[in-house]
Amino acid sequence: MTDNGQRDAKRYDVAILGAGMAGGTLAAVLARHGVKVLVIDAGTHPRFAVGESTIPYTSTMIKVIADRYEVPEIGSLASFRGIQTKISPLSGRKQNFGFVYHQEGKLQDPEQVNQLKIPSWHSTESHLFRQDTDAYLFNVAVAYGADASLGTRIQDIETGPDGVVLRSDRGEEFHAEYLVDGSGFRSPVADKFGLREEPTRARHHSRSLFTHMVGVKPYDDCEGAKGHNQPSPWHAGTLHHVFDGGWLWVIPFDNHEGAVSTLCSVGLTVDERVFPKDGRSPQEEFDAFLARYPQIAEQFHGARAVRPWVSTGRLQYSATRTVGERYCLTAHAAGFIDALYSRGLNNTFEVVNALAWRLIEASRDGDWSTERFSYIDALQQGLFDVHDDLVYSSFVGFRDYALWNAVCQVWKSISFLPSMALERAHRLFLETKHDGPLRDLEKSDPPGLPAPVGQGLVRLLTFTRELCRRVEDGEVTPADAAEQILARVRDTEVIPTPLDLSNPDNRFFDATPDVMEQVVAWGKEEAPEHIRRLFR
Amino acid sequence: MTDNGQRDAKRYDVAILGAGMAGGTLAAVLARHGVKVLVIDAGTHPRFAVGESTIPYTSTMIKVIADRYEVPEIGSLASFRGIQTKISPLSGRKQNFGFVYHQEGKLQDPEQVNQLKIPSWHSTESHLFRQDTDAYLFNVAVAYGADASLGTRIQDIETGPDGVVLRSDRGEEFHAEYLVDGSGFRSPVADKFGLREEPTRARHHSRSLFTHMVGVKPYDDCEGAKGHNQPSPWHAGTLHHVFDGGWLWVIPFDNHEGAVSTLCSVGLTVDERVFPKDGRSPQEEFDAFLARYPQIAEQFHGARAVRPWVSTGRLQYSATRTVGERYCLTAHAAGFIDALYSRGLNNTFEVVNALAWRLIEASRDGDWSTERFSYIDALQQGLFDVHDDLVYSSFVGFRDYALWNAVCQVWKSISFLPSMALERAHRLFLETKHDGPLRDLEKSDPPGLPAPVGQGLVRLLTFTRELCRRVEDGEVTPADAAEQILARVRDTEVIPTPLDLSNPDNRFFDATPDVMEQVVAWGKEEAPEHIRRLFR
Repeated sequence: MTDNGQRDAKRYDVAILGAGMAGGTLAAVLARHGVKVLVIDAGTHPRFAVGESTIPYTSTMIKVIADRYEVPEIGSLASFRGIQTKISPLSGRKQNFGFVYHQEGKLQDPEQVNQLKIPSWHSTESHLFRQDTDAYLFNVAVAYGADASLGTRIQDIETGPDGVVLRSDRGEEFHAEYLVDGSGFRSPVADKFGLREEPTRARHHSRSLFTHMVGVKPYDDCEGAKGHNQPSPWHAGTLHHVFDGGWLWVIPFDNHEGAVSTLCSVGLTVDERVFPKDGRSPQEEFDAFLARYPQIAEQFHGARAVRPWVSTGRLQYSATRTVGERYCLTAHAAGFIDALYSRGLNNTFEVVNALAWRLIEASRDGDWSTERFSYIDALQQGLFDVHDDLVYSSFVGFRDYALWNAVCQVWKSISFLPSMALERAHRLFLETKHDGPLRDLEKSDPPGLPAPVGQGLVRLLTFTRELCRRVEDGEVTPADAAEQILARVRDTEVIPTPLDLSNPDNRFFDATPDVMEQVVAWGKEEAPEHIRRLFR
Repeated sequence: MTDNGQRDAKRYDVAILGAGMAGGTLAAVLARHGVKVLVIDAGTHPRFAVGESTIPYTSTMIKVIADRYEVPEIGSLASFRGIQTKISPLSGRKQNFGFVYHQEGKLQDPEQVNQLKIPSWHSTESHLFRQDTDAYLFNVAVAYGADASLGTRIQDIETGPDGVVLRSDRGEEFHAEYLVDGSGFRSPVADKFGLREEPTRARHHSRSLFTHMVGVKPYDDCEGAKGHNQPSPWHAGTLHHVFDGGWLWVIPFDNHEGAVSTLCSVGLTVDERVFPKDGRSPQEEFDAFLARYPQIAEQFHGARAVRPWVSTGRLQYSATRTVGERYCLTAHAAGFIDALYSRGLNNTFEVVNALAWRLIEASRDGDWSTERFSYIDALQQGLFDVHDDLVYSSFVGFRDYALWNAVCQVWKSISFLPSMALERAHRLFLETKHDGPLRDLEKSDPPGLPAPVGQGLVRLLTFTRELCRRVEDGEVTPADAAEQILARVRDTEVIPTPLDLSNPDNRFFDATPDVMEQVVAWGKEEAPEHIRRLFR
C-alpha cells in the first residue's frame, strides 16, 4: 500500500470502489496483468457479509477467472477443499440445496420437500465464511500490486472524456482512466449520475433479517424431518424452509468432519407487502415467526445470535444503466434481487469475468470508449431480470406446493445447462488456450444465461413468470399453472429429457453418473443441433 | 441474545463493557456459573486487534481458568494445536522469542542476538489471529447464556450502593449489581470517575505503528541472519528487531506446516520523545526506518500492508485506582505499557482469573462490597509496575548490547519461576480439586508476580530499573550496569543456578530436559526453603 503522497501523484488505469468480493477479485486480475489499479473502500477487513452459499455455476466461473486471467489464488475459492486448505477453514460445506415446504397451522407434509444434491463426482460447494474469503481476495490483489486506500470515503466524483477524479472526505484526490463501482446499494456512482431505477422494475418484493447463530440444531435431528427420505442430509447443505410469503435460510459452517466453526448463518426473507416492518426488534420478529411454525422452531431451540441482527427494508433495487462514460457499476452496485438461489455471488463473478478482459484491453489500447463496455450493461440487466423472474415466480409458488414444485423444476432447468455450457467452454479454453469459447458464451440474446442455451431457457422463465403473474391476479389456479409450467419444461427442447424435470414427482434431483450417461447420450443423439455441440 | 424489550426489564448480576478477550472470557466463566451477565460493546465482531503473541505463563493461566471455572472451550486457547483445531486455523505458531540487536550505520553483529526457545516438551505457543480468537471467546459466552448488546454505546453510568444503571446513546437502560469495564484506554468508567492517572506514573515512553502485511520474508532467509546459529529459526517464533530507541515486532501467521494464512503482524514501537510524530504517514515513517536499517529492510522487500496502519500516540496510561463501589476496571481499561514481552494478554487473563471467583461469590452472597475486590486493584497496579519496570529497563538497555543482554536475563529470570509456580498450583488444583493452591498465588506482596517467587523477583526488577535510571542519568555506564545486574541475578537466591542466567554468554535459553533435571535437583537440594516446595 503506497502512502497518500505517492497516491496523489499517481494516475491509475482503474479505480475500484469497494474492497469486497467483486473489488478484490477484479483488482487481483487487473494487477496481475499490469493494469495500474487502486481499490478504495470506506471500511477495512475483516467485516461481516452474507451471500455465503456457492452454486456449481459460480464455482466454475471462479475457475474460469483463475485460469483465464492466470491468478491461481482465485481458483482456491472454487472448491470446498481449496477453501479449507488455502482460504478459510471456518467455512462450511454445501452438498445440496434443500427446500422444506411449510404451511402455517399444519403439520409439514413429508412429501413436500425438494432437494438438489450436488453430485460428489462433480464438486463440493461451500458455505463461505465471508469475512475470510473477502479479505483473502483483497490480500491477493494487494500481493499482486494493487494499491489500496481503505478507510476512505469518496464524496466527489468527476468523470469525463479525460478520465476520472475522485475526492475523499479528507480532501485526498485520486486520478484514474476508468472507474468501477463495486460497492453496493449506496453506490456513489449511481448516486452521482442518478442511475437508480425509481421505482425498480423488479416484480419481486422482499425484505430480510439475518444474523449468525450458535446452537442451531441440524434439521435432520428434528422431529419435523422424519420421513423425508431425501438423498442428502439437510445439514450437509443449504436448507431453505419455504412458506407462503417467504423463506428462511439455514447455512451451517459446522457441517463437516473437523469443522472448527460453531456458527450458522440464519436469514428470514419475507414479502414486505405481506409482512411489513413494525416496531418489533428483529429478534422479536424472528421469535414470533418461529411461534407460527413450531416445526421450524425446533431447529432453533437454544440457538442464540452472536451478532446484531441486520434488518433490511425492501431488498430490490436496479439501475437504469450500469455503464457510462469512463465508469461502470458491478453486480451489487448495479442491482439486487434476493439471496434465494445464491445468485448474488454468481452475478458478481460473471460480471468480473466479462469486465476484466475489457479493462485489460482498454488499458493496453488506451481506449476507454463507452461502447467497449456496453455488453456489461446488457449482461447485468439480463442477470437482474433472470433472477427477478425466478424469485418472483418462486414467491408466487410458495402459496401452493404444486406450483412451487413446478417452479423449482424451472430453477433446476435453468441451472443445469448453463453450468454445462460454462464447463465446456472452460474445458475448451484449457485445451486450446484461446478464449474464443469463453467469448462465445457472451453471444446470448438477451444476456443473463449463457449461449447457446440461454435463449430457450429465458423463454421458459418468461413463460413461468407470466403464468405466475396470472396466478397472482387470480386468472389461473396454482394447480393449472403448475401443470402448464411442467408441460412447458417438457416442451423446452434444450432441457435433457433424462433429467425428468417435467415430472412433478421427481423432487430429489441427483445427477448420478448413470443419469449423466443418459444425458450425454441424449445430447449426442436427440438434442437440438445447437445444443449437440455441448456434448462433443 | 435477548431483544431490547426483555433486556430493559431484566436486572443483571454483572454488566461487562467490552466484548473483547477480557469481556468474552469473563462472561463465559460467569454465565457458566449461573451469574446473570450482560456484555455491552459499541462495536461487533469480527474486528482487528493486536496483542497476538502468547507466552507460557499466559497459556498456563488460560488452562487454569478453563479448569478452575469448568469452561473447557477456553482451554482450547492454551495450545497451538487447540487453537488450530478448535478456534482459528489462521493463527500462527510461536516456538521462540527472538531478539536481534541492530545499530544504525553498522553491520549487525551475529553475536548480538538472543533467543528463548520454548521447549517443545513443554508447550507450543501461538500467534493469535485475534479477530478469530476474540469472536470465539465471545461466542462461547453467548452459548453459555450470556446476553449481549452489541453496537451499543454507553453514554451514562450511575453506580451506587444499590447497583449500576447504564444508559446507551439510543436511550436504552441496563441494570446490574456490578460493572466490569473491560474496554480500553477510552474506558467510560475511568472517564466517569476521573480514574486516569495524569500524568501516568509509567517510566516507560513509547508509541507504536502497526499493521498486517503480506509478503514478509522469513528473517532466516535474509543475508542479515547469517551466522546467528540460534537454536530455533527466527520465523518459527516472535521476532524482535531491537535498536536504540525502540523495537520492531514480526509475528508471522504463515509459519507452520499447512498454514493457511499469508499474513504477518508488523509493529514498530519507538520512544516518542526520541522519535516524535511528525507529518509523515505511517508507511512513510516505516519506509524511512527501514532505510536506516538496511539489514531489517531486506525482510520487508516486497512486503505490503493489507490494512491501514494504526499509528498511536504515547501508549502508556494508568489508573489511580481500578476498583470502586460496584465497579472495577480490567487489564486494558486499567492501564497499558507496551506490547514488548506480550504481557498485555497475560495481564488480561491474570485479572479475569482473580476477578471471576470474586464475582461468582459476590453474586451468590448478594454482597458486592468494595473490599471484596480490593485485591484486584493491588494486582493490576502490581502487574502494571512489573511491566513498566521491565520495559523501561529494556529501552534503556537498547542503547548498549551488554546492558540489553543483561536486562534480557532479568526478563528470563522473572518469566521462568512464576510459570513454574503457576504450573504447580494448577497441577495441585487438578489433583485436589481445591482452589487453595490457586488462591495462595495471590499471597504476593506486592502482587504482580505470584507467590512464593514474586517478592524476590520484584526486588531484582526494582534493582534493575533503578540501575537503568542511573544509566539514563549518566551516573553509571551501561557496561557497569550490565555487570551489576548480572551479579544481582547471580545473588537472587530464587533463581535456579542451573539456568545460568547470570552468564552474559548464555544468550540462547533452551530449557532442555537435561537442564530441567538439573533445575529440579537444585530445587530439591539447594533452593531456599520457601522455593523448595515448588519442586515437591
